[in-house]
Parts: sequence; structure tokens; C-alpha cells
Amino acid sequence: MVRKEILTQAEHVQNGRGVVKTYHVCTKEELGEVGRLYGRVVLDPGCSIGWHRHVGETEPYYVLKGQGTFIDNDKQVYQVGPGDVCVIEDGQYHSIENNSDEPFEFMALIYNL
Amino acid sequence: MVRKEILTQAEHVQNGRGVVKTYHVCTKEELGEVGRLYGRVVLDPGCSIGWHRHVGETEPYYVLKGQGTFIDNDKQVYQVGPGDVCVIEDGQYHSIENNSDEPFEFMALIYNL
Repeated sequence: MVRKEILTQAEHVQNGRGVVKTYHVCTKEELGEVGRLYGRVVLDPGCSIGWHRHVGETEPYYVLKGQGTFIDNDKQVYQVGPGDVCVIEDGQYHSIENNSDEPFEFMALIYNL
Repeated sequence: MVRKEILTQAEHVQNGRGVVKTYHVCTKEELGEVGRLYGRVVLDPGCSIGWHRHVGETEPYYVLKGQGTFIDNDKQVYQVGPGDVCVIEDGQYHSIENNSDEPFEFMALIYNL
């Protein structure tokens, strides 16, 4: 069976700026005990997901398109682009933002540890 | 922490044609009990992953780029493109191939049910 991705939009995610568009690959129900989110996230220029923490789960970001600014648990700032993986370990904080002039896209998978 | 995707290449995957390039987001060790593969798969023109089955796990494909031919468990043939999700249920067979003139890319996540 083939179906389409499912778009949801949210404002001020984790106190971030603007709108976060998420194109879901799986629903939370389909992921079951594995995790709670799997989708492609699009941040338009100026948009961000604010500083937040994951406990008992992880959320690797995999960059597909554009340029973003990733801040890790140690407040280290990384400019990330296609092919980069932002690694989040259990209990760590992070944020991500698009300070560029083009859309920034990445895959997000939140899975249980 | 930020790191790069990890490329592996394999020939004749599931008796398919040509080379399958997989850019891994997570290692098998990082996925732990969640699953065993998470990465971006690139099939160049003429390449394919042959007919195979998943038992006790699922593997949604999420198409990022190009056009591919997905054959599901009922032998139904779908032409798929960006934004399409190929759903595989427990115990089902499937195959995927690139019969186009451009590279075909999708995210693959094999997770336990």
C-alpha cells in the first residue's frame, strides 16, 4: 500500500520562532512502543525549534536540504547541512534554527532508548 | 555532537540489480532494540532491491527524490515520488526499483513491531 505523507503545522515549538511544518511518515500509533515521531521537518527562513530536552528517548536529526544552526547540550553551535547527523543523547538539551535565506529540511525520529 | 552520515554500498540486494547505496543516520548499535536500519537509500537508474519479506518488523519507505516502482505484497505496482510512503505490514513482501533516468532516493527505517 502507498499513501501520502501527513502534514501538521505548529507555532512556537518549544518556544521557538515561527511555524514548524512536519510531514509525518508514520503516525504515533504505527510507531507503537518504538517511539513517537518520524517525519520530515521544514523550517522556513527565520523559524526555529527552541531549546528543549529529551529524557528516556533520543532524536537524531538528519539534514536533507539547506543550512541550519544546531546548538547541542554543551551550547556548542554547529552550522549543519545535507548529510549531517545531529546526535542527541538521553537527557540532553538542544535547539535548531534556520538563519539562512532558504528553507531548511531534516528528518526527525524520536525513539525510545 | 554532529557527525556525518555513513555510506555503505551493496550489490544485488535481495537479488536486485546493480548497487544500493545506503547513507546511514544511525548504526545498528545506536538503534538497539528499536530496529536495525535507518538511512537514506539511493538507487541509481536501473538499480533495484529485489522481492523480499519482513517478519516481526516493518520498513516504511519515504520517498525524497526521483521516481521509483514499488511492488507491494499483493503484487500491485505503484509509481512513487516525493512525499509518498510505502507501507509494509508484518509478514509482507515487497520490492522497489528505479526504472527512470534519474537517481531515486528514499528514507528506509526498519523497526521492530
